[in-house]
Amino acid sequence: MWFQTNLTLPARNRGFHLITKEVLQALPEISQIQVGMLSVFIQHTSASLTINENASPDVRRDFERYFNQAVPDETSYFEHNYEGPDDMAAHIKSSQLGASLSIPIQNGKLALGTWQGIYLGEHRDRGGSRRLVVTAFGQGK
Amino acid sequence: MWFQTNLTLPARNRGFHLITKEVLQALPEISQIQVGMLSVFIQHTSASLTINENASPDVRRDFERYFNQAVPDETSYFEHNYEGPDDMAAHIKSSQLGASLSIPIQNGKLALGTWQGIYLGEHRDRGGSRRLVVTAFGQGK
Amino acid sequence: MWFQTNLTLPARNRGFHLITKEVLQALPEISQIQVGMLSVFIQHTSASLTINENASPDVRRDFERYFNQAVPDETSYFEHNYEGPDDMAAHIKSSQLGASLSIPIQNGKLALGTWQGIYLGEHRDRGGSRRLVVTAFGQGK
Repeated sequence: MWFQTNLTLPARNRGFHLITKEVLQALPEISQIQVGMLSVFIQHTSASLTINENASPDVRRDFERYFNQAVPDETSYFEHNYEGPDDMAAHIKSSQLGASLSIPIQNGKLALGTWQGIYLGEHRDRGGSRRLVVTAFGQGK
Repeated sequence: MWFQTNLTLPARNRGFHLITKEVLQALPEISQIQVGMLSVFIQHTSASLTINENASPDVRRDFERYFNQAVPDETSYFEHNYEGPDDMAAHIKSSQLGASLSIPIQNGKLALGTWQGIYLGEHRDRGGSRRLVVTAFGQGK
Repeated sequence: MWFQTNLTLPARNRGFHLITKEVLQALPEISQIQVGMLSVFIQHTSASLTINENASPDVRRDFERYFNQAVPDETSYFEHNYEGPDDMAAHIKSSQLGASLSIPIQNGKLALGTWQGIYLGEHRDRGGSRRLVVTAFGQGK
């Protein structure tokens, strides 16, 4: 069985944000799948998806600090700079972290670990709303 | 329905290259899938696949500059150096960016965003031809 | 056809470890699949999965050296530091490398390249045992 939906996330500030609940609410049919997979895909090149710690907000703040230090805005050798000082750095962060997630489904639920949540990485100062494609597939119960 | 093919890409220069068209041409059966997924996998450990901006060649040049600075050839503490000064750095870039992509299929087409394309990251000076495995699966129309 | 199992890896030292054999032994049903995909997912946020060179142990040692230099323990600006000096760095490495792998299956075998193996990245000093979810799906022979 296959289920797929397009999900538009509202604009968020630059940084890392937990979106597990929004993804699950977008595709309640996950509960019908006994064994399967969930794919989450972001249709942008200046934002990212990753899985990390779902409890402490300071982890998400440290993510933002780390990636800003590792890929600074306005890096001197960036040639692609006409869309703003945050643009090229956002493209690189997007590929470092990735545009998609694949998460197993077991007995109608995501098989995430206790401390795992889905992060949206918003790498632009004004990224606006972000479009996801959420796809679940597998064997029914 | 399942479709799978092996695709050999011709040798390219070190750097990042758009290969979206080659991937799509290798598996025209994608058009038969209403809801599904495309997997693209590279069978090498010194090249990578990622999704990023499909329009401006300067983005791909900045990718090459950034990753060469972040993972320099001939890094002094590299122990694995007998395959050339670019080899160990290529292995690390390959894992930072990844060996596979998962892209949803909607109504016979890849559900890529407007500005998204598939990049080959060629991280060796003379990487030679590169082998991909392209797999599409889903519900037929 | 779908096969899924939970695999607990024994505790390993901090560093990168080849686990291809353990993954394959956990799901021998892969041999029944003609065309399909294997998903490997780690249920932790301070360890990672990646694909890289399966022969030379020095590659895995260089991975550990590189990522320790790129994301140092006890980075001064880390706010999330109460779980030990290696914890926040481990979270970042986990997202840089990723929590899941997608590998095509061809004719009952993983379609890995000659030199590709599955790495566990253990990013904590005492990470303990690690839980994986291994899922194979596809068309039977």
